[in-house]
Amino acid sequence: MTYIIGIADTTFARVDMATPAMREIEKRLPDVRFERYTVPGIKDLPLAAKLLIEEKGCDIVMAFGMPGPTEIDKQCAMVASMGLILTQLLTNTHVIEVFVHEDEAEDERELHELAVRRAVEHAENVVYLLQKPEELSRRAGTGVRQGTEDAGPARW
Amino acid sequence: MTYIIGIADTTFARVDMATPAMREIEKRLPDVRFERYTVPGIKDLPLAAKLLIEEKGCDIVMAFGMPGPTEIDKQCAMVASMGLILTQLLTNTHVIEVFVHEDEAEDERELHELAVRRAVEHAENVVYLLQKPEELSRRAGTGVRQGTEDAGPARW
Amino acid sequence: MTYIIGIADTTFARVDMATPAMREIEKRLPDVRFERYTVPGIKDLPLAAKLLIEEKGCDIVMAFGMPGPTEIDKQCAMVASMGLILTQLLTNTHVIEVFVHEDEAEDERELHELAVRRAVEHAENVVYLLQKPEELSRRAGTGVRQGTEDAGPARW
Amino acid sequence: MTYIIGIADTTFARVDMATPAMREIEKRLPDVRFERYTVPGIKDLPLAAKLLIEEKGCDIVMAFGMPGPTEIDKQCAMVASMGLILTQLLTNTHVIEVFVHEDEAEDERELHELAVRRAVEHAENVVYLLQKPEELSRRAGTGVRQGTEDAGPARW
Amino acid sequence: MTYIIGIADTTFARVDMATPAMREIEKRLPDVRFERYTVPGIKDLPLAAKLLIEEKGCDIVMAFGMPGPTEIDKQCAMVASMGLILTQLLTNTHVIEVFVHEDEAEDERELHELAVRRAVEHAENVVYLLQKPEELSRRAGTGVRQGTEDAGPARW
Repeated sequence: MTYIIGIADTTFARVDMATPAMREIEKRLPDVRFERYTVPGIKDLPLAAKLLIEEKGCDIVMAFGMPGPTEIDKQCAMVASMGLILTQLLTNTHVIEVFVHEDEAEDERELHELAVRRAVEHAENVVYLLQKPEELSRRAGTGVRQGTEDAGPARW
Repeated sequence: MTYIIGIADTTFARVDMATPAMREIEKRLPDVRFERYTVPGIKDLPLAAKLLIEEKGCDIVMAFGMPGPTEIDKQCAMVASMGLILTQLLTNTHVIEVFVHEDEAEDERELHELAVRRAVEHAENVVYLLQKPEELSRRAGTGVRQGTEDAGPARW
Repeated sequence: MTYIIGIADTTFARVDMATPAMREIEKRLPDVRFERYTVPGIKDLPLAAKLLIEEKGCDIVMAFGMPGPTEIDKQCAMVASMGLILTQLLTNTHVIEVFVHEDEAEDERELHELAVRRAVEHAENVVYLLQKPEELSRRAGTGVRQGTEDAGPARW
Repeated sequence: MTYIIGIADTTFARVDMATPAMREIEKRLPDVRFERYTVPGIKDLPLAAKLLIEEKGCDIVMAFGMPGPTEIDKQCAMVASMGLILTQLLTNTHVIEVFVHEDEAEDERELHELAVRRAVEHAENVVYLLQKPEELSRRAGTGVRQGTEDAGPARW
Repeated sequence: MTYIIGIADTTFARVDMATPAMREIEKRLPDVRFERYTVPGIKDLPLAAKLLIEEKGCDIVMAFGMPGPTEIDKQCAMVASMGLILTQLLTNTHVIEVFVHEDEAEDERELHELAVRRAVEHAENVVYLLQKPEELSRRAGTGVRQGTEDAGPARW
């Protein structure tokens, strides 16, 4: 079976997260095809994801965005996230949000590293959701993180 | 009658809340089956819950999550909660949100205790909702809490 | 005509607001029947209200809740309110939200008084909505409050 | 053609904004009929507006409210606004929100003046939307305000 | 093929952003027709955009708004943005939000420049979305901004 994976991303983001994510998926899934849809900003992502699912037949979508550091940017991120959840509920299809907030990193180099790593590690989640859901359940409640060190399970 | 109970949880959470909740339910319900769906983070829970209801026939769902301590984490929690309410309104089925905020506890040991206790006490609520709704009405307005001491009714 | 009035409340609240509200309604409406649905917390109220309307045939619902004092509690209240509005728009039926924020009162005694009074005064609103909408229009823009002294119309 | 204009307002507000708005509309529209629906508070307005449109056949609705000065009041206003937008999207009919925040004015006299003026100036907008949309386009981007002096176009 | 482009804007905004945006589109698209819909404020934009799509047959909509500097204005902007996303999900049509926050600029001259430039640069995005989506994908993750200097890709 060929999986069709939607890639929704923005020109606003300062790192190309889509390319490393697609490479990671290709390594792990023998038979895959990508549909890419680039929009200006994160608030355009919910519709992009919906169109990838409804018009391009995607089995799952990754939505990449990089909200800026201001209060307004945070507000935009919240609205975009709500929209991505609505898209999922309207299509019964997962849209994995991969957002990196610009102020999560100290400088551009760190921002780049964080974004690529988060993209790759969420690509792994996409493969699990499609093919190996038991891998996720095995890690339930273990403090997995994407882009940074895992927090790990709480010690008791 | 066999109840089918959905268990939606995340790899992000640092405590496995699903296992103690399922144990508690098994003690209280003679005939029960679980469907578990683990996703990466709390914003993936609304769709997971919807699929558990619509595709796995669950009678009720528990959604376990552990939002982190930052402002962005709080924002994610709000969006996830809104999504869980939408799922309920679209399916006419209860989804009991069991969220533990990482900053509710002072250290990891306390976090673990709080999370397990909240999970178990919400499992009790699930059983009441399915089989003994009068038990909930008996406690209406009495300041019941999950995971911590009950606040109790306001004294007057 | 017998009105069926839905009563949705929580075990989390520290005051039983439902009982005084029902008493008040019984005094004012000769022919009334109540359907009560108690859930754990305020985020469970939107579905409870929807089920009371769709499955129990309620003509109107009162939704009682008591959000706690923390930031997270305020956030939960907002999400619950949004859900109650969605329920109304999906059913074309009023759901009167009766929320008392725990930090509205200085101590438990005051909290109890405030909650009971607000419940009773909203019960009056319910009767007006069902039977005497002109009573509400007569008071439009006059600064009516529930649970505390009316603010009154702005003097000019 | 007789326009039917819905008037949704609250007993909570401290100024009767509906009456001056209706007077203004009557001056400008030769043939008009009003349907008034008064509810307790602003969170009851979305359904009131929807019922005015769906059951009373209103061509447009004005929704008057006066949120209080506290954080919780601001939160309620946001939820109410979101509900009013949902009502519009579900009915394809405009609902003009006329909210005056109590803390926009220094004293009650100023509050009264501001509220009446905003109501009247939004009544003018309602007439334009129904009959002279070109009047609005002529003023696009010119910094029009309701209730206070126009900000005017940005000078450059 | 003639594209029909919806232009939704407000009388509240202090800069006419629609005119420079339409000029830019006309330069780039040989065959285009505009439908303009001006409303009082940003919370009226979601329905305006929906009507432009459903009743005027627009292929895409630009929604121009200029939120003021206060907390309430920011809240209104968030609600309006959420509404614009809902419009998109209900119509499967892009609505490009072009909001300029009044406090993004130091004075009126700068505000005017910023608003016009953002409008023009989003007009370019509209043309890309309609005709050259590959131009957007070529710029994915490169830190494009509208109205100000591009942030550029993160250096690493």
